[in-house]
Amino acid sequence: MTMPSNMRIDGGRLITRLMDLAAIGATPEGGCRRLALSDEDRQGRDWLVAQMRALDLDVRIDQIGNIAGIMKGVADGPAILIGSHIDTVASGGKYDGAYGVISGLEVIAALRDAKIMPPRDLAVMAFTNEEGARFQPDMFGSCVWAGRLPLDDARQSADADGFLAGEELRRIGYEGPEKPGFLQAHAYLELHIEQGPVLDSEGGGIGAVTGVQGITWLEVTLEGQPNHAGTTPMTYRRDAGLAAARINLRAHEITQGVPGQLANMGFFRVEPNNVNVVPERVVATLDLRNPHAGHLAQAEKNIRDYMTGLEKDGDIKITIRDLARFAPTPFSEHLIGKVEAAAKSLNLPVRRMISGAGHDAQMMAPLCPTAMIFVPSVGGLSHNPKELTQDA
Amino acid sequence: MTMPSNMRIDGGRLITRLMDLAAIGATPEGGCRRLALSDEDRQGRDWLVAQMRALDLDVRIDQIGNIAGIMKGVADGPAILIGSHIDTVASGGKYDGAYGVISGLEVIAALRDAKIMPPRDLAVMAFTNEEGARFQPDMFGSCVWAGRLPLDDARQSADADGFLAGEELRRIGYEGPEKPGFLQAHAYLELHIEQGPVLDSEGGGIGAVTGVQGITWLEVTLEGQPNHAGTTPMTYRRDAGLAAARINLRAHEITQGVPGQLANMGFFRVEPNNVNVVPERVVATLDLRNPHAGHLAQAEKNIRDYMTGLEKDGDIKITIRDLARFAPTPFSEHLIGKVEAAAKSLNLPVRRMISGAGHDAQMMAPLCPTAMIFVPSVGGLSHNPKELTQDA
Repeated sequence: MTMPSNMRIDGGRLITRLMDLAAIGATPEGGCRRLALSDEDRQGRDWLVAQMRALDLDVRIDQIGNIAGIMKGVADGPAILIGSHIDTVASGGKYDGAYGVISGLEVIAALRDAKIMPPRDLAVMAFTNEEGARFQPDMFGSCVWAGRLPLDDARQSADADGFLAGEELRRIGYEGPEKPGFLQAHAYLELHIEQGPVLDSEGGGIGAVTGVQGITWLEVTLEGQPNHAGTTPMTYRRDAGLAAARINLRAHEITQGVPGQLANMGFFRVEPNNVNVVPERVVATLDLRNPHAGHLAQAEKNIRDYMTGLEKDGDIKITIRDLARFAPTPFSEHLIGKVEAAAKSLNLPVRRMISGAGHDAQMMAPLCPTAMIFVPSVGGLSHNPKELTQDA
Repeated sequence: MTMPSNMRIDGGRLITRLMDLAAIGATPEGGCRRLALSDEDRQGRDWLVAQMRALDLDVRIDQIGNIAGIMKGVADGPAILIGSHIDTVASGGKYDGAYGVISGLEVIAALRDAKIMPPRDLAVMAFTNEEGARFQPDMFGSCVWAGRLPLDDARQSADADGFLAGEELRRIGYEGPEKPGFLQAHAYLELHIEQGPVLDSEGGGIGAVTGVQGITWLEVTLEGQPNHAGTTPMTYRRDAGLAAARINLRAHEITQGVPGQLANMGFFRVEPNNVNVVPERVVATLDLRNPHAGHLAQAEKNIRDYMTGLEKDGDIKITIRDLARFAPTPFSEHLIGKVEAAAKSLNLPVRRMISGAGHDAQMMAPLCPTAMIFVPSVGGLSHNPKELTQDA
């Protein structure tokens, strides 16, 4: 992470590449739509491969379409990987993913300019389908790379129109010969926009990401009775909507008692959903996140205990189903320190922070020392055409 | 209301008529589907008119299809009207509406048996489209009868398939020559199932209905910001779903402080409605009811004041729109007393109660002394195929 004194990052060149890639799949709102394995993704990949070839990199593509552009280093052996993804959500921005891949290209371009050969191989990575907007699960490229998802499972994933990922991969010409994970990793680095408001609201600066927090998604089904709202006394009601409201408030209260805890109720389906009928049934989701596994488990226990009490007191039947469960992924303390030191050497404000969202880096973390660098998102926006990181 | 000593209500005959009408539009679940001005409604009307003719009544039909079966009384002048409606909701029960019309037939049948001529004309009424399940507004037959809705407005009402009420009325042969309201009313009586659990849970008995409570329906739109649930600190969030939950809880708290107050949040639309996105926008409804206009206004003010505070504290934009507003309709104290006295003379438990739902009686109340009699709904169910009133 220590930059040789004669090496210069060219910010203008980096921004030009970002805008060139953003022109592929550009939307009228100023954002990007490059859904994984679509024609726009193919054009983005073609652009990326051309950039890699222009930098004289050895371009290799694996069986799930992950792209590696390799610069030969002094020593043989495991490579340093820098990357992210170039697919976007349906209504995405210019920076999410692209910034991480293009920053890798710029590091190599700067090394070429300074005629420096890195001490070991250096590879720019673009992983397939990080967003999961077209094919589930999300992050399947890095997931297969890390050996945590069988290749065939990813290939058999179908989009909403029934197109299979494996067939789309072949159609766009990016089913490569390499075995996923073929490049042994010495370390993995990913630069990404924060996707949250913290850095921007603090006046900019760099985030030294300490890891990806744990995620627990619960689906909660509440069943009461659909009484007439004009004829049923309040004390006779079994209101599934009111129970959902109580759970929502309690979930938010719990975040104040458990360090680092986040909670969201983002989805609600209410039945029969009539102005004059007491809600009989509500299906809602709880998204609980925490960097520490123990705290996350404590928050989940607290809210489950509350629901058990509510079931008895409110005469509401409550069914809880797991939708997702990811343990926290800590990054390399050694690399986090290097990110901080590098930012300080450039006189950039730097703070340690956790990643709230999932990233390819969390798949790489079990394989090698891994770190992420966050840059500010203006207004905290992401997955949004207005997504913006100031050029500075 | 005082029954001549030689007059006997024949419960068996009343139940037989109820079951005969329930066979028209019967559903596999044991309920009824006779949507207003449908073929099933026509068959129900044909059956009713045949019953009226068999009782030697003068059958008259008005321009919106309200049916009157008139028994001549000793004196000329305003008539006593007994009635309700025979249309049902899509998945309705056997009793709602039908009971009120058929009880009128039974009163006349009992008078015929006893060879008693009533002191004034007595008419059995079946009003068109009380439920509002097919054509809006609900209660449009009695509403036009009372001069509170122009005839043409009701005739121009279109169902979900674009069929106009006026054309459907003509198609089924029930566009009559009489002007709505043609029969001057001395009093109006309506027997109805309670549609709530109170009488049933108290072991049965009769409800002497004191009036129809006031109704205020508000649509509340809450606007926050659609942040990422994994990357946005809790303190940065502007959660429209959490604000809706707080309003729901407060609306329920308010019912404990305002006498006779009911509140329901029955409808919710959440956007973008994703597990990992903080709700940006919620459209929800508030159904507030109270028998007393002053109390209803107080409850509305309380909840509006709370929302004003929430708008500031929670940084949520709140827009409130009126969906409906009906003032409380008190019934005739004189007739309420007569209902109580009659029940007591038959050794039936009787309690005064308010009607939580709307009924044709509330349209009649401004025209003449009006009262309603409630009979128990087993389990408080109504608008439900399982709707049941024990034969006793």
